[in-house]
Amino acid sequence: MKMPENDTITAIITPIGEGGIAVIRLSGPDSISIACAVFRGKVDLREEKSHTVHFGRITGADGAVIDEVLVTIFRSPHSYTTEDVVEISCHGSVFIARKILDLLVGSGARLAGPGEFTRRAFLNGRIDLSQAEAVADLIRADSAPSHNLALAQLRGSLSVKVSQMRTKVLDICSMIELELDFSEEGLEFVGREKLINDLETLRDEISQLIESYEHGKIQREGLRIVLAGSPNVGKSSILNSLIQEDRAIVSEISGTTRDTIEESVVIDGTRFNIIDTAGLRETHDALEVEGIKRTREQINHADIILLIIDSMVGTHIREDIDLVGSYLGDRSHKEIIIIFNKSDLVQENQTLEMGKKYSAYRTVLTSTKTPSGMNELKKLIGMISLRGKGRPDGESIMISNMRQRNTLQNAANSLDFAIQGVKNGVSADLLSVDLRGALSYFSEVVGVDISEEVLNNIFLRFCIGK
Amino acid sequence: MKMPENDTITAIITPIGEGGIAVIRLSGPDSISIACAVFRGKVDLREEKSHTVHFGRITGADGAVIDEVLVTIFRSPHSYTTEDVVEISCHGSVFIARKILDLLVGSGARLAGPGEFTRRAFLNGRIDLSQAEAVADLIRADSAPSHNLALAQLRGSLSVKVSQMRTKVLDICSMIELELDFSEEGLEFVGREKLINDLETLRDEISQLIESYEHGKIQREGLRIVLAGSPNVGKSSILNSLIQEDRAIVSEISGTTRDTIEESVVIDGTRFNIIDTAGLRETHDALEVEGIKRTREQINHADIILLIIDSMVGTHIREDIDLVGSYLGDRSHKEIIIIFNKSDLVQENQTLEMGKKYSAYRTVLTSTKTPSGMNELKKLIGMISLRGKGRPDGESIMISNMRQRNTLQNAANSLDFAIQGVKNGVSADLLSVDLRGALSYFSEVVGVDISEEVLNNIFLRFCIGK
Repeated sequence: MKMPENDTITAIITPIGEGGIAVIRLSGPDSISIACAVFRGKVDLREEKSHTVHFGRITGADGAVIDEVLVTIFRSPHSYTTEDVVEISCHGSVFIARKILDLLVGSGARLAGPGEFTRRAFLNGRIDLSQAEAVADLIRADSAPSHNLALAQLRGSLSVKVSQMRTKVLDICSMIELELDFSEEGLEFVGREKLINDLETLRDEISQLIESYEHGKIQREGLRIVLAGSPNVGKSSILNSLIQEDRAIVSEISGTTRDTIEESVVIDGTRFNIIDTAGLRETHDALEVEGIKRTREQINHADIILLIIDSMVGTHIREDIDLVGSYLGDRSHKEIIIIFNKSDLVQENQTLEMGKKYSAYRTVLTSTKTPSGMNELKKLIGMISLRGKGRPDGESIMISNMRQRNTLQNAANSLDFAIQGVKNGVSADLLSVDLRGALSYFSEVVGVDISEEVLNNIFLRFCIGK
Repeated sequence: MKMPENDTITAIITPIGEGGIAVIRLSGPDSISIACAVFRGKVDLREEKSHTVHFGRITGADGAVIDEVLVTIFRSPHSYTTEDVVEISCHGSVFIARKILDLLVGSGARLAGPGEFTRRAFLNGRIDLSQAEAVADLIRADSAPSHNLALAQLRGSLSVKVSQMRTKVLDICSMIELELDFSEEGLEFVGREKLINDLETLRDEISQLIESYEHGKIQREGLRIVLAGSPNVGKSSILNSLIQEDRAIVSEISGTTRDTIEESVVIDGTRFNIIDTAGLRETHDALEVEGIKRTREQINHADIILLIIDSMVGTHIREDIDLVGSYLGDRSHKEIIIIFNKSDLVQENQTLEMGKKYSAYRTVLTSTKTPSGMNELKKLIGMISLRGKGRPDGESIMISNMRQRNTLQNAANSLDFAIQGVKNGVSADLLSVDLRGALSYFSEVVGVDISEEVLNNIFLRFCIGK
């Protein structure tokens, strides 16, 4: 494990912009003495208690006043990083905040890197790695579910769960390794049937956590719904109908091209990113080729594909389905819904027949005349969005990032080897290797035994000042 | 004067965006009890001392945790507004900060308007109006001079100066009004010669303050230098030469049209906004007409106009000068510099002759071959930028906005009337009217006796959360 760093770091911890106040944080052993070098007030900060606020002025080397400020002192270990921390609250001008930052660096502080305060909170043992990751998630949260997920993780729900599983594996491992000491006697301290039972229970718990990732991803990033189909089948009316009701937040995402329109809606607490695409079918026109390339990429990254068909025309349906299918990429967790639009313009028996013909897929009949089809579609999308919500009973603990998922998957694989090993009657020393493997993966989730490189990757996701 | 307001207001006081922390402020009599309604921690905030910080959680009506926060208490009168103030520091997510704001409003706080915290600091007598205005200036300051000017004003330099002048006028006024009580005896408590002397000294001091406005404006907003001239006279090479040396900050200002290019440079601490314009001369082409209209506006708002002439061509010079002159508008504090460019391409006696011919103007000979002309131009611009710097000796007090300037101008006019009155031997009661007038204008500068409407105008300049 990386040793705690020992210098004093500083950064502006409020967003850059015009505001009432800006806050600059110092953390490290020299925080208070560095603050003293630039602060002029009634009190000597070195004498003041933790969690107290002091009015004064920041002055430059030439004695010139930079700003009137409030300085808050947090004494180790009662601070964000567990180190001595000083927070300087100045007038909300980028110019002033940068000037104060310069002075602090001039007095011996080092500019903090992205996430370095949180990294120290982790290295100093105040929070574990999954909690540190939750801080970044919390700051980025822009909907209730993503916020709740990050907050639960920050408060340690995942840490507790993983630690519990780690302890169980450690217990089993100890018993198995005890057998090694008595290997000449051929003793079994753990009954093999109970062992299989215990390991499989653990294995199920990990599976549930891994499955929660898909739902956690939906909670954080939302479901991607891609509308595909030929021109004039009514894609935009379906798009509008989807986003116009119950919408809490609707924003046009900037940077989209003229070929794709992306709208973001929160319905019943779940975010949906709805993407309208250009043509589906091959062409030789250069512009259209570009559009089709983008459609393909969008379908490839979609969670739900709405393939919209003009019921009046009804040709190319099979072709379109195959095309969409060929664009899908990894099919797991993807749904295609075929929408027969303008269904009011054709005979009922025709629509029934179409429904039958494509009964292998989810199909919906829609029309601008009656809302029933759109309501059915919305229900269907809602149902799909609930998929993988974890155990329906009680507070489900979820994981929120790829690193956690992959590390838990590795733990699951190790346990699978161990279970298989027990069933095949392998020796205790071989079992021990697999169990030790699972243990180290559990440790990695919460950040015990983690490499500098992995740490760096994690904290690069942070903003400066966190 | 407006009475202090009595409800409790709240706003996010950090800039909106992603950061380490966001801060929400409450100010008013119920700040602490409203904070208690949403805060769960180890302590009862109502029992805690001023200037202390407390860790805890913000919870919603349903008991759900919104975030882990630090709450700082400032007890009246030791706060920004002099009221009870609570500042809640949460994770730097817009989502969380807004959610907490909603909860505070739900618990009885009102959303603060722009500048409302500072308005309360003023209404409650902690700062005067010129100091309140300085807060807005300080937040917007983006160069050292504008920052220093705002800070000096925040620290009360202008307030002290104006109060001193006000006291002097009040003393004189009291003596004059004492004469009124004894008018039947025909007593003069103030010698008329000393009176004129005292009033003229005051009048000079006001003039210096008013003059400081021009320089203060330059410090805050920078000097506007407009380049005018026919096409191909070398405007852009002069523009580039002006901005390429010693430039600390150069930014292309967005939203400019294809007809004008605006660059912003800070040289030796003074900001220069340099604007390159399109054609100068009348035309019938619709696009050009639009360009000329804009050139006219730019010249109208310029501090310095650089009229660039191609020395080789040398025609239309008088015509161009007259045209620029007709665009000038208010001529005070404006300078025209005639630049004979490409001067290396003509005979020396020709350039000498041109210089003589236009000796009523500042002229400079430039050429891409030698830097001497450009150096001369820069010196000239630097000299003009120092104009009106106030008394060169010692710390000059400056005013920073139009309101202060206009109010002081009114005070000056009242004093002029009074001085003229004394000289003409008018009666004490008439003198008293003019002196009372001057008094009320001095009061208005620092915000004693000010109308609700003027107040509203001032605080609309502020951002929400200040």
